[in-house]
Amino acid sequence: MTRSELIGCIRQKESFLCVGLDPDIKKIPEHLLREESPLFSFCRSIVDATAPYAVAYKPNLAFFEAEGVSGIEAFAKTVAYIRENYPDILIIADAKRGDIGNTSALYARSAFSHYGVDAITVAPYMGSDSVKPFLGEAGKWVILLALTSNPGSSDFQMQELSDGKRLFEKVLEVSKTWAGPEEMMYVVGATRGELIADVRKIVPDSFLLVPGVGAQGGSLEDVCRYGMTHDCGLLVNSSRGIIYASSGTDFAEAASCEAKKLRDAMSLLLKGHVL
Amino acid sequence: MTRSELIGCIRQKESFLCVGLDPDIKKIPEHLLREESPLFSFCRSIVDATAPYAVAYKPNLAFFEAEGVSGIEAFAKTVAYIRENYPDILIIADAKRGDIGNTSALYARSAFSHYGVDAITVAPYMGSDSVKPFLGEAGKWVILLALTSNPGSSDFQMQELSDGKRLFEKVLEVSKTWAGPEEMMYVVGATRGELIADVRKIVPDSFLLVPGVGAQGGSLEDVCRYGMTHDCGLLVNSSRGIIYASSGTDFAEAASCEAKKLRDAMSLLLKGHVL
Repeated sequence: MTRSELIGCIRQKESFLCVGLDPDIKKIPEHLLREESPLFSFCRSIVDATAPYAVAYKPNLAFFEAEGVSGIEAFAKTVAYIRENYPDILIIADAKRGDIGNTSALYARSAFSHYGVDAITVAPYMGSDSVKPFLGEAGKWVILLALTSNPGSSDFQMQELSDGKRLFEKVLEVSKTWAGPEEMMYVVGATRGELIADVRKIVPDSFLLVPGVGAQGGSLEDVCRYGMTHDCGLLVNSSRGIIYASSGTDFAEAASCEAKKLRDAMSLLLKGHVL
Repeated sequence: MTRSELIGCIRQKESFLCVGLDPDIKKIPEHLLREESPLFSFCRSIVDATAPYAVAYKPNLAFFEAEGVSGIEAFAKTVAYIRENYPDILIIADAKRGDIGNTSALYARSAFSHYGVDAITVAPYMGSDSVKPFLGEAGKWVILLALTSNPGSSDFQMQELSDGKRLFEKVLEVSKTWAGPEEMMYVVGATRGELIADVRKIVPDSFLLVPGVGAQGGSLEDVCRYGMTHDCGLLVNSSRGIIYASSGTDFAEAASCEAKKLRDAMSLLLKGHVL
């Protein structure tokens, strides 16, 4: 999916909501455990319930991999289901991969060619040749970790370098020489709202994938205040707040309701800026 | 596998060789493509041919994931095969995972509980809560990326911080407060031999998993000069140099021959130090 297609979808749906698909076998509604593929059944229901409000889905590989081969099958089916039924929605494999060049090339093959996702999250620690193999395919995206939403992000990402920059700023500066805003986005956590302004100084036009609104405590309004551009430039992710809104048989309606609430808030925030 | 069991295996085999299992469907011998699971058939033959000389196997997830569900099945079968036939050999999932706490916990469940590997490589960028969920299970190991062997390692790992330390040194210093040398190892590339001495100043007793000997140009002698401890403290990995020593029907014998050469060199280097 190209950048202009993504922006078109945001404008049409009045939403920049990314729904995180984190299907934990220990948390999904009990009645689904009788299904042939509980993880896929759960994801399919969540997708059908939230698709009117979402511009992106972000299945997190860890939750599928935790179930071994059957989990990977559920991941493949989930991606195929979204692609077939909602072709205008961006699919992000939240995988946080990154390895030496020849190995990253295989992760790219897996994500883009085998499963057919549009984007993959990548960790920057190993540097340029660990990221570049994911680049260069039309309509495919790298979403590089810059400043994450978890407490441990302080350990290294916030370290000050000898030139006065913090590590996450160095990651932004260096990596933007590898690819422009047509094929690279950045993960920037909502839990550090005011730091999004610092991110925007370095990558004014890039899309940011923003986790941490909701369960992790970030504010949607702050994210928009500091991060929104004239063509939005944001994908705000919510996982647990939507997909586990209810643990009963009404989980899909509850998810739909939570997704709609977020979309409605987003629609207001887009007005005047982007719409 | 505990640290003392690993050291026992090193002493018994006079080897600290880790064989990297990177089965690329485009590079494995052609006659294997007719097998039901070419990747598993390849790995099984390599394992049988090299087991007398190896103390660890390091299947790299990327090479299996590139083939989708069937690749993951081959990974599971490879791990089960090694576990059943060579229970004294350490199995490392080279996965370079790392995510927020609840997600890392699922990657740990996948690696340790589902597939039953002994160790997993983990990326440090997201900090403490991305690494700690992998810790605390008896006989299981985290192998944290510190200083990798690829050209891109200069981009961030070698950055100097405001306190004069380089990022990889900060990663070592901070992470060693999370776990001791009984459950944490570090990835330190052989291509920067002299830097291993700097690593040893911070983690004198930890095992180092050292890639980059062979195809990437690192020197086994330098690695030992700077990195060997009184109980070895090293696992030196070779992947391509062993597993693709021949692309013909004699690939397993060729792999055995290359592994034996490395073991013989290692045996000499261990004498006087460890044996």
